This record gives sequence, structure tokens and C-alpha cells, in this order.
Amino acid sequence: MTRLDQQMAFLTEIDRLKSVIRATTLCDGSRMENSAEHSWHIALYALVLSEHAETPLDTGKVLKMLLLHDLVEIDAGDAPVFGTHDAADMALREAAAADRIFGLLPDDQADAFRALWDEFEANATPEAQFAKSIDRMQPPMQNLASGGGSWIDYNVTLETFEARIAPKINTGAPKIWEWLKPKVTAFFATNR
Amino acid sequence: MTRLDQQMAFLTEIDRLKSVIRATTLCDGSRMENSAEHSWHIALYALVLSEHAETPLDTGKVLKMLLLHDLVEIDAGDAPVFGTHDAADMALREAAAADRIFGLLPDDQADAFRALWDEFEANATPEAQFAKSIDRMQPPMQNLASGGGSWIDYNVTLETFEARIAPKINTGAPKIWEWLKPKVTAFFATNR
Repeated sequence: MTRLDQQMAFLTEIDRLKSVIRATTLCDGSRMENSAEHSWHIALYALVLSEHAETPLDTGKVLKMLLLHDLVEIDAGDAPVFGTHDAADMALREAAAADRIFGLLPDDQADAFRALWDEFEANATPEAQFAKSIDRMQPPMQNLASGGGSWIDYNVTLETFEARIAPKINTGAPKIWEWLKPKVTAFFATNR
Repeated sequence: MTRLDQQMAFLTEIDRLKSVIRATTLCDGSRMENSAEHSWHIALYALVLSEHAETPLDTGKVLKMLLLHDLVEIDAGDAPVFGTHDAADMALREAAAADRIFGLLPDDQADAFRALWDEFEANATPEAQFAKSIDRMQPPMQNLASGGGSWIDYNVTLETFEARIAPKINTGAPKIWEWLKPKVTAFFATNR
């Protein structure tokens, strides 16, 4: 295989992310969102909102991370954040998926993509923390727009949200969490 | 409205791009593709394939162009490349859409996004030409994978493809067109 053959095999394979269905709906509630369109949406979130990060970011790196962070779901599936799944088992399945899917690329690109995915998962650099915050704040935005969405489907309470989601938004994007918090709080106050 | 209010209004509005249906199917032919997931896919195409451009590119600019280039379809709809539509009328509708949709953002971001969209549409810089080539080569890749797709639906011939699509791929990405051309030619040779 030539280098272009490998690259095109990867680009055709990742089309399958369009068939991975998430727990969140579109803003109009008409259907569940898939992971490819979610990835597009959060890339634009990052582009528009990166000015609110606490430190200057390499925005190009944030965009790349967000565009590829969900590719492992092609093999491992989407684990809804309020669902029950074995985190250790999911981590193993996602690592195997990263090996296979990034491994379709030429070695140098496979290594570069894997490094970006590992950095996102480790959630330790400013870029990874901001990207993770954006990935965690888009679903609440969809739920607020659609009238509840996955919060209703999974019987989520404000306490659960504040324990499992709020810290992840607040770590990488405290100014954005400050904007979102009263809206989330008001939703749960009037929908319990 | 605060700056964040404006940015969030824009990010919620653009969710509607997920409901704009294109003429191309997924690679497995299971359903038509929407413009949001298409935009995600071509951003990854650009990320993987930018090394094949004729001149070094500002890849970050290419990514931004591709992520936002279809937003005007929220108001103007998608004009299938093999369909019949009034190009002048469509250009007017898309410009009005750009005014409205980018206009939801704070002025500085509205101007920056509009400049990127204008640059993409003008197709004159290396970044715009490469981005346009990627936007034009992903549908043939989907059609080759699905067994014909929009080529069959619109009764497209090799002559039509070579007149209307090939030059647009070749302008910004001749090495990629060189890879794709024999595959497209072989498809039409065996499916006429």
C-alpha cells in the first residue's frame, strides 16, 4: 500500500463514526445525535470559546483533539456519561480501538494522532483540559435547548450533575461554567 | 447580551446544520449524509492529507474554513453539485445566510468567520483551493464506497464528472486527483 492508500483507508473507515449514536438529542429534540456531528459541533464550540480559557491555548491542537477524540467509539461504542459501565473495561476497549483505527494510518501520523488522543484522555495539559470542558458542556447545552434530553432519560438530578459533570467543565473552562451554572440550576429547580 | 450570550446563541443555532441533508450517502449506503457530519469528515480529510498540497499550508486556516463553510446551508439549503439550481440566486441566498448566521456572533468573530467564508468561496488562496479540493473529493470517495450513490441518483457520466468536479479537485490537490482518477474512471467504465 502507498501512503495515500493507507490514508484513504483510514478516511473511509472513520465514516462509521456517523453511525455511533449518543445519549443526547439535537437541540430540537427530533432525534439522537451521532458522534461525528457532535465532534463537528464541539470543534466550533472550541473555535468560538477558546478566548475564555484561563491560559493562551494552541487552538489548532484543541481542534485536532476534538475532531479525533471520539474515533475509538467506532469499535468501543459510546458510553453515556450517566449510564453504568465498567470504566476499566471501557478504557481497555478504547485503547485497543485506538491501536486499530489510528494504526490504519502511516506510522508517523498514527503516532501523532495517538499522542493527541492520549493527551486528551490524560486531561493534564491546558489544551486537553479545555477540550474536555468543551466536550462536557455541549451536552448540557443540547439538553437545555431540547427541554431535558438525556437528563430526563437517565433520571439525572442536580446533585448528580454537580458531582459528575460540573467539575470537568470547571477545570478547563471556569468562565464558561460560571455562565452555564445558573441555567443548569434553574432547569433542575423547575423540572424535579 | 453579553459576549458569551452571543457566542452561545450562535453555537445553539448552528445545531441546525445537522438537519441539512446532502445528496451523498454514508459509505455503507444506509442513509443520506448531513452537512454537519460531512464538515467533520472533511476536516479530518484535510488534517490527514494536507501534506499532499502543492505548497505548505496554514492547516489551521484550512480546518476553520472547512468547519464553517457549510453553515450558510442552514438558511440556503444544500445545492447538490449535479442538480439544477440558479447559481446567481443561490449566491445571493448564501450571502444573506452568512450575514444572519455569522451576525449572531460578536462583531470581531463575525468578521473573522465571514472573511474565512469569503476566502473559501473566492477559491483564490492556496488554503481555499486545497479546502475546496477536499470538499469536492470526499463525495466521490463516498460514492465509490457505496457503489455509486449520487452518481446513480443524478445519472452522472464520466464526462459530466470530468467537466464539473475533476478540475475543482485538481486545482487544489493534483496529487490527490492523480490517486483518485483511475478509481473514478474504473467505476464509470464498469457502471454505464
